[in-house]
Amino acid sequence: MTTLPKRIALLGSTGSIGQQTLDVIRRFPEQFQVVALAARSNVSLLAQQVQEFHPSLVTCFADTPEAREGARVLLPEALIGEQGLLAVATYAEADLVVAATSGLIGLKPTLAAIGAGKTIALANKETLVMAGHLVTQAAQRAGVAILPIDSEHSTIWQCLRGEAPGDIHRLLLTASGGPFRSATLKELQAVTVSQALAHPTWHMGPKITIDSATLMNKGLEVIESRWLFHVPYDRIDVVVHPESIIHSMVEFVDGSIKMQASLPSMHLPIMNALSYPGRLNATDDEFIRELLWSEVATLHFEELDRDRFPCFRLAVEAGRRGGTYPCALVGADEEAVKLFLEGKIGFLEIAELIDATLELHRSTEQPDVAGTLDACAWARRTVQGLWKKKVS
Amino acid sequence: MTTLPKRIALLGSTGSIGQQTLDVIRRFPEQFQVVALAARSNVSLLAQQVQEFHPSLVTCFADTPEAREGARVLLPEALIGEQGLLAVATYAEADLVVAATSGLIGLKPTLAAIGAGKTIALANKETLVMAGHLVTQAAQRAGVAILPIDSEHSTIWQCLRGEAPGDIHRLLLTASGGPFRSATLKELQAVTVSQALAHPTWHMGPKITIDSATLMNKGLEVIESRWLFHVPYDRIDVVVHPESIIHSMVEFVDGSIKMQASLPSMHLPIMNALSYPGRLNATDDEFIRELLWSEVATLHFEELDRDRFPCFRLAVEAGRRGGTYPCALVGADEEAVKLFLEGKIGFLEIAELIDATLELHRSTEQPDVAGTLDACAWARRTVQGLWKKKVS
Repeated sequence: MTTLPKRIALLGSTGSIGQQTLDVIRRFPEQFQVVALAARSNVSLLAQQVQEFHPSLVTCFADTPEAREGARVLLPEALIGEQGLLAVATYAEADLVVAATSGLIGLKPTLAAIGAGKTIALANKETLVMAGHLVTQAAQRAGVAILPIDSEHSTIWQCLRGEAPGDIHRLLLTASGGPFRSATLKELQAVTVSQALAHPTWHMGPKITIDSATLMNKGLEVIESRWLFHVPYDRIDVVVHPESIIHSMVEFVDGSIKMQASLPSMHLPIMNALSYPGRLNATDDEFIRELLWSEVATLHFEELDRDRFPCFRLAVEAGRRGGTYPCALVGADEEAVKLFLEGKIGFLEIAELIDATLELHRSTEQPDVAGTLDACAWARRTVQGLWKKKVS
Repeated sequence: MTTLPKRIALLGSTGSIGQQTLDVIRRFPEQFQVVALAARSNVSLLAQQVQEFHPSLVTCFADTPEAREGARVLLPEALIGEQGLLAVATYAEADLVVAATSGLIGLKPTLAAIGAGKTIALANKETLVMAGHLVTQAAQRAGVAILPIDSEHSTIWQCLRGEAPGDIHRLLLTASGGPFRSATLKELQAVTVSQALAHPTWHMGPKITIDSATLMNKGLEVIESRWLFHVPYDRIDVVVHPESIIHSMVEFVDGSIKMQASLPSMHLPIMNALSYPGRLNATDDEFIRELLWSEVATLHFEELDRDRFPCFRLAVEAGRRGGTYPCALVGADEEAVKLFLEGKIGFLEIAELIDATLELHRSTEQPDVAGTLDACAWARRTVQGLWKKKVS
């Protein structure tokens, strides 16, 4: 049993989940203490966070000259570069490591934190998608828990409390359907970047917002679920639920379905991971807005149209195939979304480029860390190559 | 740990819940064995059940001459009268007693079963409503568990698995709203018996169907919840949900809301109580119909209109007042519903007679068994007296 305050090391403190993690800690100052912060390149925000939370370890990846210069001026005590991430992940003073970096960069620190015996609150999707086998094996070996921060996985995890894993029949992830739930294929062809960035129910970073619009995000969540809950792919399904009130479901073998609901909020899954095994009392203020059922009034459910959202199918197929397919998927998606955000390709070309890349991929089984990162890098280069060929 | 098959003593085997309990046992013959059956007066059905399940103890309350004669012919080995109920409730060979009688008659056998150290699967509402203080005290003293069979309480109970009682913020019971959810007061005045017996989502016995139409049933469930989960009345609320897919909810202190869903089925809560702490595997057939979300499509929620359904308010008030008020409520409701089913009073007069009776009631605190039954009998006489005065 950890004594309070629980000491938190936060990887990715200036991103969306990182900032919301600090919101939670600010709201519950007696429960938590920030002991280490790692950010990528938003030096001024990191400096503000340091001033407010007084961590004893501060690191900045600083992958641009401006960030390095900023860090030198604003945070002269900060560790710079990748070794900073690893130092935060394995910091001896921390009870819990929150892995809230985005993209590939989270993999090595997460494995390092597990190796150091840290409980991990995991918000970084790519880590489990690309290296679920490595992460779950390492966690099992080290006897450490991986606590999910995504709202879908947090819900499943909450619904499994007090239940036997053998009693799970099926996991059912809910999907808002994103901004283009009802769009025709023709409308999807003409989607602009700003339309794709306008998610109807969730406010998130740009990459995950595009992934939500293509439903790639839901496919990645299926792969994550397979690793987090050890449920095979044919017993993980998705249902579209536009209001984002019910955040997923577990069907048990007797036909009982448990689910968790709230108004859309990332604070809640963060609170759940941070406070586990207890719950934080947020009844006194509006930190978590109360869900009034008579105001919500109506919840809708519909089947996912896999034809209009091929990214979902591509993700689940990559997950089923295993090997380095999920790594290639992640890399291809990162590069394709980048091209879309830069205005270089259309919305539907995201899936086309990923599909073509996966078709070219030669998978290897049970990749190690270098193997996962190589497959990912190969996929990024391949997407770039395919695009250049297309425009030339 | 009980070894299989779990040995079941069933009180009220010919009623709706009793028959569905036997459906479950028939579906899972390796898990359960019927060792004792008690019925009221449906001797021919009881005789069929005896032939199918071969209990070693059979009893029949047989409160009519016809039933006594029938039992003499068809079930010569059966114990007759109230001592039969007590014998089944305390039967040494039983691991679990299912209390599925309706009305007052369940109270003494339930207390006797608790006294004999039996785990109780409780479907009988009146027992907890009238004598929640006696039942929960006795259960605590004897260290036995009371497992709810009602779908609402089964849901709350399932949602509380693995959770700390101190983390409950609020219980939210869902109510279908019954057949008159959208009826005006004027329409309610003209309701016929057959209209009131046509429940939109649940098929149950006549008394509970009328109680569902008046929302008295939901009020009684609030009182039961107070005793089953030790949550005060001001943290138990109701929301109308016409589709009866979500069977209640628990709000936790962090704002997380857990709920349980299924197509309406009493088999499921019965299965949950019988198999606790495990779950039965019903994935192989259609015993529990699969809930297909894209077919369900839409769930609605609305506030309960307390003005049109005064029975709900009367029940919760009686619960809050405590003492013998809930006993008087149960007695008055039984008699008033009887008058309605006999075509002697209108639908809205049910609430009027109960209200007038509670107004006249002189409550005593902490009643014993005799005190609860006396208050109940007094209320029945009072309703009869008020009605006679009205029609004379």
